Amino acid sequence: METAPLRLKGFPRGAVAQAPFRELRREIEEFHAEYCYVLDNNEIEAWPQFFVEDAVYRITARENVEADLPVGLVYCEGLAMIKDRAFAIAHTAMFDPRYLQHMVSNIRVTAASASGEVSAEANYLVLQTLIDEDTRILQAGRYFDRFLRQAGRLLLKERHCVYDTLRIDNSLVYPV
Amino acid sequence: METAPLRLKGFPRGAVAQAPFRELRREIEEFHAEYCYVLDNNEIEAWPQFFVEDAVYRITARENVEADLPVGLVYCEGLAMIKDRAFAIAHTAMFDPRYLQHMVSNIRVTAASASGEVSAEANYLVLQTLIDEDTRILQAGRYFDRFLRQAGRLLLKERHCVYDTLRIDNSLVYPV
Amino acid sequence: METAPLRLKGFPRGAVAQAPFRELRREIEEFHAEYCYVLDNNEIEAWPQFFVEDAVYRITARENVEADLPVGLVYCEGLAMIKDRAFAIAHTAMFDPRYLQHMVSNIRVTAASASGEVSAEANYLVLQTLIDEDTRILQAGRYFDRFLRQAGRLLLKERHCVYDTLRIDNSLVYPV
Repeated sequence: METAPLRLKGFPRGAVAQAPFRELRREIEEFHAEYCYVLDNNEIEAWPQFFVEDAVYRITARENVEADLPVGLVYCEGLAMIKDRAFAIAHTAMFDPRYLQHMVSNIRVTAASASGEVSAEANYLVLQTLIDEDTRILQAGRYFDRFLRQAGRLLLKERHCVYDTLRIDNSLVYPV
Repeated sequence: METAPLRLKGFPRGAVAQAPFRELRREIEEFHAEYCYVLDNNEIEAWPQFFVEDAVYRITARENVEADLPVGLVYCEGLAMIKDRAFAIAHTAMFDPRYLQHMVSNIRVTAASASGEVSAEANYLVLQTLIDEDTRILQAGRYFDRFLRQAGRLLLKERHCVYDTLRIDNSLVYPV
Repeated sequence: METAPLRLKGFPRGAVAQAPFRELRREIEEFHAEYCYVLDNNEIEAWPQFFVEDAVYRITARENVEADLPVGLVYCEGLAMIKDRAFAIAHTAMFDPRYLQHMVSNIRVTAASASGEVSAEANYLVLQTLIDEDTRILQAGRYFDRFLRQAGRLLLKERHCVYDTLRIDNSLVYPV
């Protein structure tokens, strides 16, 4: 566990001034709302629709990122793997039923190119409720996103979820 | 406890594209900020001002919604009942003093009609602090809202709060 | 612990209608995102850049504010004190390593003058992860902010953090 700034290779820090990205930021906020809705609402098979064909989806502990260890908890390369994962979660009953709820805050656009590629970060919080248990914090972390625009709509080229939470139970099989 | 998508009768799922509702979404965000401020700030008697005359206010467990059980924890039909509830909370001292704090995220506009009626959803999180206790999660849930526009301002025609949290203590007498 | 409305001397309650402040509200949201990023990312020495020269930074328990007790947990008057604090935190190793994450919600602009001074409030939630511990709520509270505009950018003339959470550990030495 380091106390150094968290940087992810290939993701720019971004400028302090967010004003030039105001509309983009709002669009990303809308993206998060719809993305989280699908997950919170158990529409897991709709989850792959937020990614482009050759997208990468990863979940990694902040500890591992800081130690430059590439091994993450989840690694999907390409839409086929993302769809496989969604299908597996939707069609197996190996997990206890649970409710998940996402909160997203502090969205920052860190880069935007003329070609329509946008990099952004945001803090997320996932709350989990299991039968006969209190609602608790499942995971707190940060989204590192790279978006492409296709048919006027932002889609994920890459989503790298880096979580602070060190003790994660098996429910992390669910995407965040 | 189901893992099926959560739908509420009479509330549309809404389209994936939020861009047409961008300004409306911001207005709703402002509504939430003011609504939550009043509750977090113990201005409970100002709470009814957010509703129209024949408004409905409900709080129901997600379990009950999924089981199609109409019985909720709180049910107010009409502004008179809403005002009664606010008065009762303000003028009785039967509850331990506590601080509440609301966080709202992932606002989605799900429908908007030419007549000014707007349907929207949002995730909420209510944090509670009691004397000599840690701040904890009181309730995580989703607002299902139907707004009308009166004198230029959005007011609630219906607010249905559906909470994930299964174990709720008596403090839920407070509106969310 | 009172249940009276929380007011801070010198801070207006603000009007119910937020529409006139829509763009300003968005600008403040961007400010929070960048401010929180710096803290969550352990860039503590960049923290003073968000304040004007004669800024005041305070953290006070809501209990104390309600009792009109001026003594707070943290009190910095002027940028020099703010910089001292940042330097001390960055260059001492007296605290256990931890990850912090901020969530901000319910931003309200409460006043805006022609000269560019803006008053605003927002709810914040700080999550903390220590080694081998679950992520937990460190502090829930409200920002009471007064901004000035300098070189086109909003900077804090005053930030008063009022926290609900009654039991705070020593990690509050970190700014919020």
